[in-house]
Amino acid sequence: MKSQPAVLISEVGPRDGLQSVDAVMPTGDKIRWITALHAAGVREIEVASFVPAKLLPQMADAAEVVKHAITLPGLTVMALVPNLRGAQAAFAAGVHKITIPCSASEAHSQANVRMTREQMVASVREIVALRNDTAPQVKIEAGISTAFGCTLQGEVKDDDVVWMAAQVIAAGADESGLSDTTGMANPAQVRRLFNRVRAEIGDRTGAAHMHNTRGLGLANCLAAYDVGVRTFDASLGGLGGCPYAPGASGNVVTEDLVFMFEAMGVATGIALDKLLEARAPLQAGLPGEPVYGMLPEAGLPKGWKQGVPA
Amino acid sequence: MKSQPAVLISEVGPRDGLQSVDAVMPTGDKIRWITALHAAGVREIEVASFVPAKLLPQMADAAEVVKHAITLPGLTVMALVPNLRGAQAAFAAGVHKITIPCSASEAHSQANVRMTREQMVASVREIVALRNDTAPQVKIEAGISTAFGCTLQGEVKDDDVVWMAAQVIAAGADESGLSDTTGMANPAQVRRLFNRVRAEIGDRTGAAHMHNTRGLGLANCLAAYDVGVRTFDASLGGLGGCPYAPGASGNVVTEDLVFMFEAMGVATGIALDKLLEARAPLQAGLPGEPVYGMLPEAGLPKGWKQGVPA
Repeated sequence: MKSQPAVLISEVGPRDGLQSVDAVMPTGDKIRWITALHAAGVREIEVASFVPAKLLPQMADAAEVVKHAITLPGLTVMALVPNLRGAQAAFAAGVHKITIPCSASEAHSQANVRMTREQMVASVREIVALRNDTAPQVKIEAGISTAFGCTLQGEVKDDDVVWMAAQVIAAGADESGLSDTTGMANPAQVRRLFNRVRAEIGDRTGAAHMHNTRGLGLANCLAAYDVGVRTFDASLGGLGGCPYAPGASGNVVTEDLVFMFEAMGVATGIALDKLLEARAPLQAGLPGEPVYGMLPEAGLPKGWKQGVPA
Repeated sequence: MKSQPAVLISEVGPRDGLQSVDAVMPTGDKIRWITALHAAGVREIEVASFVPAKLLPQMADAAEVVKHAITLPGLTVMALVPNLRGAQAAFAAGVHKITIPCSASEAHSQANVRMTREQMVASVREIVALRNDTAPQVKIEAGISTAFGCTLQGEVKDDDVVWMAAQVIAAGADESGLSDTTGMANPAQVRRLFNRVRAEIGDRTGAAHMHNTRGLGLANCLAAYDVGVRTFDASLGGLGGCPYAPGASGNVVTEDLVFMFEAMGVATGIALDKLLEARAPLQAGLPGEPVYGMLPEAGLPKGWKQGVPA
């Protein structure tokens, strides 16, 4: 790609997507898929989650996947870690960046990690201390999950989200983004909350992790872009289904998101034709698993050339 | 609904949707569907197309459908008319408003109505004269189709779109909107073109008719809203499939669009629960026909109340 990317598309499929499906993708297929994503120009990939294999057998090969991914030039290799033990393993494996999910919803925090939000902030502080001692080059993102609503407690107050973002930054995280874990966000809320978070933590404001559960994924990404967000999580083929919404994909589809930005003239650094080719290794590694995407189904518009905005 | 609607959702399913499927919905089912839409609060419905029955047998009962629809209080009953003969029939049937499709693309104009764009503008002028003479209360919209790109000629220049909008208004149309007939629009283009058209024809700028072919339907509606558009076409269940994109709905799904606006606190005047109920008569009248919609699949968010923005 010739132009400097204006946005960073952070692919979460190999972690967020794979942990959501029952099938376990073989390590070789994961590596082929990640390699194909990198070949398309993807420059940040969440490749694994460092959690006990008995909890998530899909992620048992996390260290091996990281070992390969860090050989790909220019790629930021991310992993999710829920706690200090996960961070130790991730640092040992050689990741470049970790993301720690921190719920703005007390009910979700308890259900997801059996910790209060204050305990989770303390956990971030411990992980930061470990990073500073043992792996100072690693970046730490604390993503605020359930930032736009919670399936357990319903509404999540804006103040709780801003408070949580401020807390994790004060605890030493390098950046904090907002996650629509439950597919409840709307564009007005996205603009309002990102503006409020930016007013609180400035340029430590991180990624928008939007879901397409109710069809608003791309509209919410557009809304976030409008208020200055420049990093967007997405999942190839929309992998990462939403268990309570059959047929409704959870994650924003990377192909559709890249198409939207490129059509707008916002360079992603990702070659859309090669990105579409990266669906093949995904599907080869998860035979029979449905993949989504409107752009892949419809194809590129007649006469469409990447880098030539309509 | 208590609050005054801030946007007008114009339902096009009974025309745009039904003419796109092979099956012919019986008149009784059409009437039950339109009645259910009205009961949900929909206040503008494109109920039929006045074209020869041999071309579109799905629309053979247009006059009968209009005859019922105009009995529903507060409803603006629209019909599509492609030419003077159609306008005569629509006026005779008692419609409140007609919409005339006018292509910005020369290639599409020839393929769709076998007229040059100049001939189409002349046709608008004839229809306006007929309206002035015989049915002065009827409003005339000229929708600029292929405004964002054309599957036949590819790119459509902004200047051609603005020129066409100016021409149809000069010919006497009351308003002119922009249609993404081919699902090629992107949000930056939507904002740019609606701004340019508004600069040219002011408050005669009409509806945004967006397609979801490549997943950008709601993002494009948001973009149009951002630049002042307040009327949006949509189709219940996304009816109106795109023949070259199996499984990819063409029209924006009314349920998803209403959810987006209501979640943002932008009142539509439509009760979402009743709108979802209006899917039943649609499905009863078209057994086996797929209907779409992310919100209908996922359901409303926990704790969500209409009129209480998140």
